[in-house]
Amino acid sequence: VYKVTWDIDEAKKGGYDHFMIKEIFEQPKAIKDTLMSRIDDSGKINLDNIDIKSEDIKNIEKIYIVACGTAYHAGLVGKALIEKYARIPVLTDIASEFRYNNPFIDEKTLMIVVSQSGETADTLAALRLAKEKKAKVLAVCNVVGSSISREADYVFYTWAGPEIAVASTKAYTTQVVSLALIALYMADMKGTIDEFEYKKVLEEVKVLPEKIEKILESQSNIKSAASYISKSSDIFYIGRGFDYYLAMEGSLKLKEVSYIHSEAMAAGELKHGTLALIEENTPVLALATQDFLYDKMISNIKEVKARGAYTIALAKEGNTEIKGVADFIIYIPSAIDELTAPLAVIPLQLLAYYVATERGCDVDKPRNLAKSVTVE
Amino acid sequence: VYKVTWDIDEAKKGGYDHFMIKEIFEQPKAIKDTLMSRIDDSGKINLDNIDIKSEDIKNIEKIYIVACGTAYHAGLVGKALIEKYARIPVLTDIASEFRYNNPFIDEKTLMIVVSQSGETADTLAALRLAKEKKAKVLAVCNVVGSSISREADYVFYTWAGPEIAVASTKAYTTQVVSLALIALYMADMKGTIDEFEYKKVLEEVKVLPEKIEKILESQSNIKSAASYISKSSDIFYIGRGFDYYLAMEGSLKLKEVSYIHSEAMAAGELKHGTLALIEENTPVLALATQDFLYDKMISNIKEVKARGAYTIALAKEGNTEIKGVADFIIYIPSAIDELTAPLAVIPLQLLAYYVATERGCDVDKPRNLAKSVTVE
Repeated sequence: VYKVTWDIDEAKKGGYDHFMIKEIFEQPKAIKDTLMSRIDDSGKINLDNIDIKSEDIKNIEKIYIVACGTAYHAGLVGKALIEKYARIPVLTDIASEFRYNNPFIDEKTLMIVVSQSGETADTLAALRLAKEKKAKVLAVCNVVGSSISREADYVFYTWAGPEIAVASTKAYTTQVVSLALIALYMADMKGTIDEFEYKKVLEEVKVLPEKIEKILESQSNIKSAASYISKSSDIFYIGRGFDYYLAMEGSLKLKEVSYIHSEAMAAGELKHGTLALIEENTPVLALATQDFLYDKMISNIKEVKARGAYTIALAKEGNTEIKGVADFIIYIPSAIDELTAPLAVIPLQLLAYYVATERGCDVDKPRNLAKSVTVE
Repeated sequence: VYKVTWDIDEAKKGGYDHFMIKEIFEQPKAIKDTLMSRIDDSGKINLDNIDIKSEDIKNIEKIYIVACGTAYHAGLVGKALIEKYARIPVLTDIASEFRYNNPFIDEKTLMIVVSQSGETADTLAALRLAKEKKAKVLAVCNVVGSSISREADYVFYTWAGPEIAVASTKAYTTQVVSLALIALYMADMKGTIDEFEYKKVLEEVKVLPEKIEKILESQSNIKSAASYISKSSDIFYIGRGFDYYLAMEGSLKLKEVSYIHSEAMAAGELKHGTLALIEENTPVLALATQDFLYDKMISNIKEVKARGAYTIALAKEGNTEIKGVADFIIYIPSAIDELTAPLAVIPLQLLAYYVATERGCDVDKPRNLAKSVTVE
């Protein structure tokens, strides 16, 4: 039995100027709803409703995560989490590319498709190709009864509630949280995680809504960064590891609602070409939430600053060293490196929203874009 | 015994305005040199010098291709060729990201690193990590005696001769050709290709220098496209499959020498956000060299044109249908879909060069960039 706790009234703007900002603020609730029925009293993840058997998980040799746009960015975080905790090799692909890439799919392959609407044409086609080749398909999906949810073997619903704004926000965070639960569940079944780490990571997942509340309450300084960016025509988001995937999502968000040419780069690739585009006052958003990559990001920030860039860094609370390096700092509450994405994305969503409103863009319905891409 | 047929005089500009254009024109010779000692009289690829044994190839369960910048783009073409012909799963990663991604490496993994200089710091570090974990490493490298060539188990030299311009051109095409030979060789050893197809593909490889000569002779119309682009601040390169990898390389080339904010996109991803950036007169370079993806590219071209984009299409000779769709067409000689990249990249290199000279940029030494990135 599916519990739908959102109703039609919730699909209205209720006091907010736009659906996008309303949906950004709904994220604590959306994540709570996504977690609620999945963690049982003993503090274990319970996916009985989804009915993936332990033997099925042990038989998986590799996983393909296939999606489009924002859902693909959530999938990249999922890849890193599954590889880290469950030690299953994960290949990721953009759905529209997947089919031309001669994928190696057989009955020991699990495909995970991620789609808010469950109607994304390319993702649905990828799902069908995988099933044809005897793979099982797990869908991470927000809409009950959608084509993808009907055709997948297993469905993990993100209980994000209706998402109206074209730019996806709460769908992304609930997708990441869902993939984190899937990663931990698989790791537990496979015995690749010990009790202590399992509890620790799950505890970190459970406090995400609270931490996001804190970020949402302290967002006022983001407006001044937004004001700077709103006057720029170009911006670069850079990061390493989880921060690279986050950079992709932050960049896409800004691009789609503000029409600023934003581009995400693996920070280590800057020197291989893109550095040539950095000039006086080019804004660079440097994501530095990964403790073990922190020193490398600091040197990337210095590198772009030396070329005149205006650097906005995103780091964990308590990181004071970065103050002397970047021009503007956005802090997020401390968290394990593996779970900074669903936190750090919040200021990036807010930034995109404020830049777009400052520029007078139609935030909820950006030009040229549709909410779900149901054609190939 | 290594045959070095390039000398110090060849490292001079000899009549050309810049090293970049000289090196673009050297590509037919560079590819011929790369092929020369590798194909024997019976028309078979001979890699005896490299000493990879047939059993070693049969034991490979997966391949990692790891590189940076342009070499990474060549690696993506290599991935597609190896997966198609030798049916070995290939994972690709940017060298600076590879190490944080918990790679699954063991003695049944082959790592292929690609580097012109053989001194790229992140690529060298990735090589060392792979060796530590007992994988064998094959280097595709241009500089004899470089660190990467010394530390790899096997070295396939691209006999491109010295590359002086910071923007890599002949290194890319010889890397792609080298990876094509490696893919065919592996396919032959594994028995995943039949005699007929092997001969056909190898024949196509052998005629690449001739076809590139033809492209270089007929480049005058590219200048008018370059003139249009030189007045733009943003451009998008779109493609699917091999054309997506090509888009990345074409975009990087333009970006590094002309300082125009260029971005490559999988054409199918446009609708998931970037389409919002297309406005009146935005140039879009649509790569449409893949026969089986041709219809989908046509609809992508129409999609961006409907938003006012100025569309420059790149297609195979004889494709007349595209004339009615795109605003400007660049033709390349006909070739099998798998080998259009080393042909289609030539007009993209020329385009980058002409745009940069028109804008008065320092083509051979773009601001902020070094020829080889020997720091992390």
